[in-house]
Parts: sequence; C-alpha cells; structure tokens
Amino acid sequence: MKLEMNANEVEAYIEQVFPQVSDYGFKIENLETGKISVSMKIADAHLRPGGTVSGPTMFTLADCASYLIVLAHIGKVALAVTTNLNINFISKPEGDLIADSQLLKLGKRLAVCEISIRSKMNKTLVAHATATYSIPPSL
Amino acid sequence: MKLEMNANEVEAYIEQVFPQVSDYGFKIENLETGKISVSMKIADAHLRPGGTVSGPTMFTLADCASYLIVLAHIGKVALAVTTNLNINFISKPEGDLIADSQLLKLGKRLAVCEISIRSKMNKTLVAHATATYSIPPSL
Amino acid sequence: MKLEMNANEVEAYIEQVFPQVSDYGFKIENLETGKISVSMKIADAHLRPGGTVSGPTMFTLADCASYLIVLAHIGKVALAVTTNLNINFISKPEGDLIADSQLLKLGKRLAVCEISIRSKMNKTLVAHATATYSIPPSL
Amino acid sequence: MKLEMNANEVEAYIEQVFPQVSDYGFKIENLETGKISVSMKIADAHLRPGGTVSGPTMFTLADCASYLIVLAHIGKVALAVTTNLNINFISKPEGDLIADSQLLKLGKRLAVCEISIRSKMNKTLVAHATATYSIPPSL
Repeated sequence: MKLEMNANEVEAYIEQVFPQVSDYGFKIENLETGKISVSMKIADAHLRPGGTVSGPTMFTLADCASYLIVLAHIGKVALAVTTNLNINFISKPEGDLIADSQLLKLGKRLAVCEISIRSKMNKTLVAHATATYSIPPSL
Repeated sequence: MKLEMNANEVEAYIEQVFPQVSDYGFKIENLETGKISVSMKIADAHLRPGGTVSGPTMFTLADCASYLIVLAHIGKVALAVTTNLNINFISKPEGDLIADSQLLKLGKRLAVCEISIRSKMNKTLVAHATATYSIPPSL
Repeated sequence: MKLEMNANEVEAYIEQVFPQVSDYGFKIENLETGKISVSMKIADAHLRPGGTVSGPTMFTLADCASYLIVLAHIGKVALAVTTNLNINFISKPEGDLIADSQLLKLGKRLAVCEISIRSKMNKTLVAHATATYSIPPSL
Repeated sequence: MKLEMNANEVEAYIEQVFPQVSDYGFKIENLETGKISVSMKIADAHLRPGGTVSGPTMFTLADCASYLIVLAHIGKVALAVTTNLNINFISKPEGDLIADSQLLKLGKRLAVCEISIRSKMNKTLVAHATATYSIPPSL
C-alpha cells in the first residue's frame, strides 16, 4: 500500500471532476499511507431541528473521506465506485466535524475503509462507518 | 401495527419541523400499514460526473422514506432517531427515483425498515438499504 | 440471470465440497431464477438459554442460503467468497427456520443477496440480512 | 463507562449461562475499560475447503467478544441482545484468531461495538465488524 497522490493533488483532481464537492466545505487535514483526515465546516443546510447535523451530511462526509483515501492510493487512472456503506450514529454532533478514514483493505478489485467521525471541538465520536469500493480493472 | 397519520398529515408535519426536506423534492406516492412509497425529483445538485445520482442522495431518500413510515406509525408524540443505516448500491440510477420502504419491525424501542430504491422510469433496482430507528420513550 | 444448476445438483455439489454443511440440517425447499428457500432443522447445539436460536446459527443460514443461490447461477466453475454480511435480528425465533434469499444483483464481479429468515411454523420474520459475494474471474 | 466485572467473573458467568460457548475455545486475553481481546483456538469444525476459517466462525467470535465487553460493563443484571451485526471479510485467515472489540457507545438502551479479527500468528486483519446490542431496562 503506497500513496499515488498527495493531499494537494487529490484536492485539485476532485475540484476538477466533482466541482459540487467543493461546496460541501471539505478539507484534507492530513493524508498518509493508509489514512486520511477530512474536516467539514457545518453550515445551516446541514442542520436538523435542534441544531444537530443531519444523517445524510455525515454519510456524505464518511463516503467522501473514504473515496479520497482510495483515490490517493489507486491514482487517477481508475474511478472507484461505492458498493456498500454501513453507518452507526453514535451521539449528537455539535459544530464542525472531522472524519478519520483508514484503509482496512486495498485489493485489486475491492477497497474497504473504516471511518470515525468526531466533533472537531471536543473529539466526541458522533458516527462510525465502514465502506466498500469497487475498483475497476485498469485498462 | 397501524397508521397514526395519513400521507397528508405526514407531509404537513414534515413541512413544519424539517422545512429543508421540502427542498429535496420528495413526495409520498403511497402510504399504507407497514409500507410507504416516496418519489424524488432528481436535480443537478444530486448528480455526479456521468449523470449518475450521488450516493448521499440515495442515502437521503432511503433515510427519509423510512423516517416517514416510522413517523406515520408512531405519531407526532415521539421523534425517532436513525441509529444505523446500511446501503448497497446495485446499479447506475437514471432520472427520478422511487423508494419503497417497509417496516420489518415496529417495537417499543426500535423500528427496522427495508428499502428498495428504483429508477422511476424503468423500475430497475438501483440501491437497497436497511435502517434502524430508536424510538424515544413516550412521556 | 439464469440457473446453471438445479436444487439436486447444488446439494450434491455442496455435499462434495463442504461436507460439514450437511451437518447443519439445511435443505433446499425451492430454487428458481433469482430465488431460493432453504430450511434448517434446529437442534440443541443451535440454542441459547431460553430456547432461542443463536445469532451465529441465523448468520450461517443466511450466508449458506445466499451462497447456494449464487452458486446455482454462476455454476461450479467459480468459487464465490462472502465479502460482507449485514444482519438485523428482528424477533425471537422458535423451532425450525426457513430462509428466503433473492439475488438483488448478479454482476461479473459482485453478487448481492437479500435474505429473510422466518420461523417455519408461524412465518414470523426473525432476522433479515443482506450479503455480498465476490465472484472470481472465470479462467 | 466502567467495568462491573473482571475477566474471571465474566468467564465464570458465561460458563454458567452459556455452557455451549466454552466448546468454542474462546479465552479472554485482556479486559479493560471499553476494550476486550478474545482469542479462539481453531479446530477442524471451523474450517472450509482450502483450510480457511468459515465466515460463521468469525461472526461467532465477533459477536461473542462484543457480547462479553458489553456484559463486563453492564453487569449480570441485564441480558443484552444482538440487534445488528455487520461484518466485512478482509483476507484469508490462518490458524488461531484474536478479536479486539471496543465499545463505541454504551448508552442506556443501546451499546455499539467495533471489532477487528486478526490471525494470532501474524496479526493480519482477517475481518472487521460492528455490532449493536439492545440493553433491556433495569428492573
């Protein structure tokens, strides 16, 4: 397992192919072999009554952080596709979030990630997920 | 298992407590004991490169359809909370979507739903999910 | 999607390659395109205190029924491998069980199944699962 | 979060209420606040063709390790019930296994655990799971 792209290269590539993602307020805080940390600024659109961050917002963060760590390891040549995502909501989130995603497996056909989402402020675990990506055959 | 609210009552209540949800373009197409069908108009914001609907969009639809079927059965008194959602992405979606969610379990503390999301046009299965909701104790 | 083997061929093949499975008391009750029903005789070894069937027993039934339906469609040439199984336990099982597994997807690389496990006697849903299998490349 | 029972107390209690479990060859290797390590001796009954440990065996280990960590924290008064278990099979296991389960959440009604299963010999990750337990109301 080794990195094919650094954080700047990953962000520039995403900007180009998924322009909508930049609207989400994601930022790669750290990227190393097998691990990524992605922060997310929480805006009003992500909130539910009572000020809690919505489930779909946390799903999006879990999926994007994992997509980015897979991309950073397989490079631009291939476009991975999410095949499964399982998320447990643990506690009520507050304020900006940070997701740590690690690669549990990077095979030729499947990558599996484990993701912890925490409130950035107090590090409380708010959600935990696992996600599987199908990696297309290289041409 | 019996309905506490009809489709109009559910939509009016959601409009009031989750105003953002109406932006999603959801519409209850059918609601009966244990079952709901919710359609979703797909707009540009939901798309990924290549014209496919994004994973988070399908997650949102699965979660909302299930939230609505739980709400319709437990009534306004309690606010259910998603505790787990597992989604498998099956095929590339095209155009507007429809989600069929059925209650597998409606207990005092937990409700479990099974959701199939199809392309509205050709009925192809695009995603399948299961979701668990925690039901707060009635006061 | 079409069957490559009938119920007798599937059972004979399993007998040969997984002799331990016959100890489980599984029997294919029905097999058609995209669907299988597998029954399981419950013995003392499967029980938990209070007479309930153990979680691992239901996992085994869900996994085997799905493995068999995949096998029936891809034929003996390839050996599928379970990559993910998500199971929700719905109610307390009683007596013999029956699992209905249907293929949600049969792709070149991945197959996805949805499984309902019921008490054979009263048809109560006791568990619901989804499972993913990786299909090795044909030689 | 604090321990209500130590490793010896947990094993003695399990011996008494789940006598079948001792046949599985499980042993608590470590137990501390929020974390447990449980090893499993692999016998012929757990094997699949090619010498790989079966999926149901790993499910059983994941479920038991998590059940024990929940039990150690809630005490004998209550009997937790598995409501959901999601498992990803990562690589081909070899020889005896060790499961590390940690409590992600210990609420009044739900506990959520995350489990990594490794080959004891070479520490390779062979499976990863998350599990949810419903905790009955204390009397």
